Amino acid sequence: MTVELVRANAGDADVLFAARVSTKGEQSLEDVDADASKSAGLINYLMRDRHGSPFEHNSMTFYVQAPIFVFREFMRHRIASYNEESGRYRELRPVFYYPGPDRNLIQQGKPGAYEFVPGTPEQTALVEREIKASCTQAYQSYQRMLEAGIAREVARAVLPVTTYSSMYVTMNARALMNFLSLRTKREGTHFPSFPQREIEMVAEKMEDFWADLMPLTYEAFNKNGRVAP
Amino acid sequence: MTVELVRANAGDADVLFAARVSTKGEQSLEDVDADASKSAGLINYLMRDRHGSPFEHNSMTFYVQAPIFVFREFMRHRIASYNEESGRYRELRPVFYYPGPDRNLIQQGKPGAYEFVPGTPEQTALVEREIKASCTQAYQSYQRMLEAGIAREVARAVLPVTTYSSMYVTMNARALMNFLSLRTKREGTHFPSFPQREIEMVAEKMEDFWADLMPLTYEAFNKNGRVAP
Amino acid sequence: MTVELVRANAGDADVLFAARVSTKGEQSLEDVDADASKSAGLINYLMRDRHGSPFEHNSMTFYVQAPIFVFREFMRHRIASYNEESGRYRELRPVFYYPGPDRNLIQQGKPGAYEFVPGTPEQTALVEREIKASCTQAYQSYQRMLEAGIAREVARAVLPVTTYSSMYVTMNARALMNFLSLRTKREGTHFPSFPQREIEMVAEKMEDFWADLMPLTYEAFNKNGRVAP
Amino acid sequence: MTVELVRANAGDADVLFAARVSTKGEQSLEDVDADASKSAGLINYLMRDRHGSPFEHNSMTFYVQAPIFVFREFMRHRIASYNEESGRYRELRPVFYYPGPDRNLIQQGKPGAYEFVPGTPEQTALVEREIKASCTQAYQSYQRMLEAGIAREVARAVLPVTTYSSMYVTMNARALMNFLSLRTKREGTHFPSFPQREIEMVAEKMEDFWADLMPLTYEAFNKNGRVAP
Repeated sequence: MTVELVRANAGDADVLFAARVSTKGEQSLEDVDADASKSAGLINYLMRDRHGSPFEHNSMTFYVQAPIFVFREFMRHRIASYNEESGRYRELRPVFYYPGPDRNLIQQGKPGAYEFVPGTPEQTALVEREIKASCTQAYQSYQRMLEAGIAREVARAVLPVTTYSSMYVTMNARALMNFLSLRTKREGTHFPSFPQREIEMVAEKMEDFWADLMPLTYEAFNKNGRVAP
Repeated sequence: MTVELVRANAGDADVLFAARVSTKGEQSLEDVDADASKSAGLINYLMRDRHGSPFEHNSMTFYVQAPIFVFREFMRHRIASYNEESGRYRELRPVFYYPGPDRNLIQQGKPGAYEFVPGTPEQTALVEREIKASCTQAYQSYQRMLEAGIAREVARAVLPVTTYSSMYVTMNARALMNFLSLRTKREGTHFPSFPQREIEMVAEKMEDFWADLMPLTYEAFNKNGRVAP
Repeated sequence: MTVELVRANAGDADVLFAARVSTKGEQSLEDVDADASKSAGLINYLMRDRHGSPFEHNSMTFYVQAPIFVFREFMRHRIASYNEESGRYRELRPVFYYPGPDRNLIQQGKPGAYEFVPGTPEQTALVEREIKASCTQAYQSYQRMLEAGIAREVARAVLPVTTYSSMYVTMNARALMNFLSLRTKREGTHFPSFPQREIEMVAEKMEDFWADLMPLTYEAFNKNGRVAP
Repeated sequence: MTVELVRANAGDADVLFAARVSTKGEQSLEDVDADASKSAGLINYLMRDRHGSPFEHNSMTFYVQAPIFVFREFMRHRIASYNEESGRYRELRPVFYYPGPDRNLIQQGKPGAYEFVPGTPEQTALVEREIKASCTQAYQSYQRMLEAGIAREVARAVLPVTTYSSMYVTMNARALMNFLSLRTKREGTHFPSFPQREIEMVAEKMEDFWADLMPLTYEAFNKNGRVAP
């Protein structure tokens, strides 16, 4: 999984400006400076009482490389802007995602409350072998069809959902918080969430970038149960 | 491809009611009856001058079965509600999409203006053979992993994007018109569109259901270049 | 305040269908019947674990009459469809909202945690007198401008924000739950909210209609802190 | 009307990056430089064929001061983020909008195709006199209620819709193009639009800022009928 922060226009000050227009109108500029010491408190108050709109006046663009099955979950988040590599316009490359050694392969428990535990060495080897065999076979099929002159959009039908794709995604902090609340599973989370590990890996990298850009907002998010305001 | 209209609350009268609240306020009920003969004209005027909001007070729920690569394009439409079969919660079935005999397999021309023409008998046979081999191999891999106790969400990695999935999607007429304007390629379309044939097949079936529900709106859509208002 | 349910296509069964496509695919129809007794449990589980999308496949259209200042707050809710009476296309009527006898007029406490208490008889009389004088004066101005041939969209500038307007608004249950969580203040609410009383009066009426349409969903909403999933 | 560009992260290069991920994947960086000369052509192609998503990976925040009746129309645009001065949290100032000498006061023609022409000197004087009288009366009422201890959210009921308010609004270029297509009335516009002059004044100022930030996109917008892609 690759996540790069391509561009950002996002800081805690943006939250403060937007919030203060509500209460102070046009005089807000000087006040923001004067009130610097109260910033953390104001942001925490907005988060706690779910005043969500001040967290929207910012924007972050990420470049993400991840398997198709991750993008399928990602793009269910509708308050975001997407451009993804197209299998209609270009030949896709033979790059596939395999579960890493830390990825728990075995699911236990009941629907809605699954837990994951490591596989045995045999299970781990099986997964690697099967994914490799399937991806190799599929990509060779894809190539044979392209060489025979078949359209890319038809030939790609055989490629597995573990094929890597890439996209730009742009979100604001409020939408990102909603994404993180559903796609990560960290300490102090008020609502339970059960993300698939692969999208969680992408989400964690996005979270790290965001934490650097908006440290007070990030702190307030964690302090208030990681619920999007 | 399967498209069923599961439920609908959508008719031309809904457009008229909503439009008339703007100009007539609460007396709109009687007026709607009195003005019945003017309905087509009013709907055409709204469409032509892009008064889009009256076309939103309705809702249609479709059940769609289509390959994953179609759903990937479909879900880029954000003004809609989706629930899709989950490869995390259930074992996926070995049902795969193959291009039918009418599906043109060869792409010609330049990016942005591709045209599609039929393949030779050899090309057609190759596509069928390759998709069959890949899908069989992939599904066997999937099954071996499941039998070995691997989690469904891991094992599905090998399944190809031509695997059938199913979903409920709910849209209003305005969102549907935007979808149709981009995902069909019919006579009288003002803006060019280049949908992949498979999503167009789904779109055409949705269009037929909608045309029956809202005939005046449908007529106005076609008359005005098939542009969403 | 008037709230009428104009049309609805909304029931608990819609939630169940949409949820079951995730786990059972196309066989869902029979299962929904068979599982009728488990419905309340499934809906409660979806609400608790914030599986929000199954609550979107439904639609309710309300006709609302309320003062402009209520509509100003209402239309900040972006996941909804609106058509409002237009002061550009029709002459507005002299109907104005006055706080009723139960409306607390005095605000106490700190920003973000205001409480409201009743006014004295003098204060109550003053409010009535001032609103009446202002509205009368404004509407006479409006009329004089219209009579002199001034455009409606110009003349309306003088009308106060307590002037009644009317609109159709269409929402799904998920959007409505978000609206209710922010615009009502009932027992058992997990997050604090501080709605202005007038929009709360509208919200309460909408809530009553919705509770009848989707009793299991409504029960689950209340049981889980009145937080939108 | 005041419009300030508070912050922006918006340039033609953002469009190019996002578009090229579709066709070139991760190698896009070098290519963007190499293809600099083709930029105008690519942007024009995206606009013409309505590839809208590449125009979303950017963000502009404006500070706007305008009368309430303008904000009422503005906030119907749902693909945007808003924070407005609150009449619940602060005392509103006695600043009111009056039509300027260039504002045509008289409406002629039929609904949906109104034209506006100047008023006579008498009409112009009447409008000024009536608005002044109403605003003065209303603000004095407001002040008397506040002085008597009435809550701000109650007292503001009397204030007219021509009262100035202020807000931050954040939009991306695609949403802004949609806004401009509906709220301006310029040469070369493909679809007719009939904005009220006051929101058009705001829109024109926003357009000027945007034209400087994204000149190639702006040129393509004008060249293609000022239709949002």
